[in-house]
Amino acid sequence: MLLGAIEAGGTKFVCAVGHENGTIVERTVIPTDLPEVTMREVIGFFQKHQPDAIGIGTFGPADVNPKSPTFGMITSTPKQGWRDYPLLSELEKVFPVPMGFDTDVNAAALGEAKLGAAKGLDSCLYITVGTGIGAGALVGGKLLQGLSHPEMGHIMVRRHPNDSYEGKCPYHKDCLEGLAAGPAIEERWGMKGDKLQEAEEVWELEGYYLAQAIAHYILVLSPKKIILGGGVMKQEQLYPIIARNVQEILNGYVSLPEIMDRIDEYLVSPGLGDNAGITGSLMLAYEAYTEQNR
Amino acid sequence: MLLGAIEAGGTKFVCAVGHENGTIVERTVIPTDLPEVTMREVIGFFQKHQPDAIGIGTFGPADVNPKSPTFGMITSTPKQGWRDYPLLSELEKVFPVPMGFDTDVNAAALGEAKLGAAKGLDSCLYITVGTGIGAGALVGGKLLQGLSHPEMGHIMVRRHPNDSYEGKCPYHKDCLEGLAAGPAIEERWGMKGDKLQEAEEVWELEGYYLAQAIAHYILVLSPKKIILGGGVMKQEQLYPIIARNVQEILNGYVSLPEIMDRIDEYLVSPGLGDNAGITGSLMLAYEAYTEQNR
Ligand SMILES: Nc1ncnc2c1ncn2[C@@H]1O[C@H](COP(=O)(O)OP(=O)(O)O)[C@@H](O)[C@H]1O
Ligand SMILES: Nc1ncnc2c1ncn2[C@@H]1O[C@H](COP(=O)(O)OP(=O)(O)O)[C@@H](O)[C@H]1O
Ligand SMILES: [Zn+2]
Ligand SMILES: [Zn+2]
Repeated sequence: MLLGAIEAGGTKFVCAVGHENGTIVERTVIPTDLPEVTMREVIGFFQKHQPDAIGIGTFGPADVNPKSPTFGMITSTPKQGWRDYPLLSELEKVFPVPMGFDTDVNAAALGEAKLGAAKGLDSCLYITVGTGIGAGALVGGKLLQGLSHPEMGHIMVRRHPNDSYEGKCPYHKDCLEGLAAGPAIEERWGMKGDKLQEAEEVWELEGYYLAQAIAHYILVLSPKKIILGGGVMKQEQLYPIIARNVQEILNGYVSLPEIMDRIDEYLVSPGLGDNAGITGSLMLAYEAYTEQNR
Repeated sequence: MLLGAIEAGGTKFVCAVGHENGTIVERTVIPTDLPEVTMREVIGFFQKHQPDAIGIGTFGPADVNPKSPTFGMITSTPKQGWRDYPLLSELEKVFPVPMGFDTDVNAAALGEAKLGAAKGLDSCLYITVGTGIGAGALVGGKLLQGLSHPEMGHIMVRRHPNDSYEGKCPYHKDCLEGLAAGPAIEERWGMKGDKLQEAEEVWELEGYYLAQAIAHYILVLSPKKIILGGGVMKQEQLYPIIARNVQEILNGYVSLPEIMDRIDEYLVSPGLGDNAGITGSLMLAYEAYTEQNR
């Protein structure tokens, strides 16, 4: 059985074919252009390989509710041409195989739970801190979904008293994403994050905000493991800063040894590295396949 | 089949026997005294009725992880005598029947999803605003549980600029519970909530804080319905205040019609009234029974 996977992002589409054990046989990267242009290449890749199922982990917002008439659509994105684009059904027109469709971060959470840092757990949270901030979660063995997919990156945090940067979120200004995603770091400090490695105050502030959000996610979801990915998290000095702040915020109320004593095993980097999303999309394909052939 | 149910609280234990359709045959209320005293009466009640399964929805923190060696224990409560009390196993010693054990708020969420305001949905959030603030959730048809149970009442909110009250949470001072639970209302305004009905500013501030928390829960969990119970929510004028603030905070980012157009059907009072918890505990008993006899 050959599985197909798409990690659909605002700058690039990663497409791959591979197996249920996570092996990738071939992969390709296609820039995100207008849908017609990008999708022609995506379809070409899969026509060559003829996978038996396809899993899609997409940027959003997207309609991930299988009961909705617009299931599989990218919805209110500002990305030109992609608003209300029926990503799933355009692929279904061409490939009559089972398909899985979820957010990129839910796919990454699934990948990490099946084959990465949360292997064997029925619960984990995957957070990406990059151009935006988003998170996906596995809860009770299933990918979290309710009325819609979560939008965890847009929660409000308490501002640091010394931080006067106004925030960059077009909807909320100073929500978490507005204060702590890569573009906010760049605008606040006048330089991209990768050039600021030595500037301690940058990462203290960054960790302060991320820890607040993570403490909230713990209080609301109580995940069994938290995985932090995305470009900004390449700054490894962030992990201990976040860990210390999370412990301070929870302040003994959540007195679990996993968090209070062994937090370095609780807040971790992706076991699959930058492949969490595409591997998770392979797993989405596998789930769609087994679901249909049950 | 007769089902038994316990809603174990810090001031009283409600015990009942009834049926899977939610009918309660008999109920009794036992004050929460030292465990020996209270449990003698609880056990007496069930010895009289001999239920075929028992469901327990308890105050916390409690160990709700079935794989843990201390599963079924009340853990770090300040309530005298109840710290590390093995509630579940004390009952199992006497009654050799299937038992379900979860938090009081998870039980209430289950009750509302089976027979109340969220009937038929596989996802809902039940929030209680009373002596404390807590929430339980059904996610993908299952009660939310991860590393431990959630502690949603202790999330941090942004303070209202005109509110100088320091907050009452012993762990965090001004977390949500510290600023908005019943005792905080009483301390801030010098009077119990039920005497403040006409004081508009009280409910504007209360709704301001509750809405922040609810917006967070929506961003993290995306529940299909939110049910608000507990003593403070008897103030019905709170619903439209919360609704307006939630919409303002989400500010079009979460542009679902359920929230933006029909929020009065989304944020609702318990369909089971004050019986959400005890009915949910009956449902926990029923789930334990069917699980064991499958
Ligand atoms: N090594 C790094 N240190 C800090 N920030 C980085 C680093 N690498 C990338 N970033 C920032 O992360 C963002 C890109 O995130 P990334 O996860 O790579 O892509 P995307 O979120 O678009 O999928 C940019 O804002 C970039 O400045
Ligand atoms: N009608 C009311 N209006 C406002 N506050 C109320 C009302 N009734 C009870 N409360 C407050 O709610 C709290 C009790 O909450 P309740 O849900 O009844 O019990 P508990 O949380 O202890 O189970 C008290 O702080 C009380 O002052
Ligand atoms: Zn935002
Ligand atoms: Zn608190």
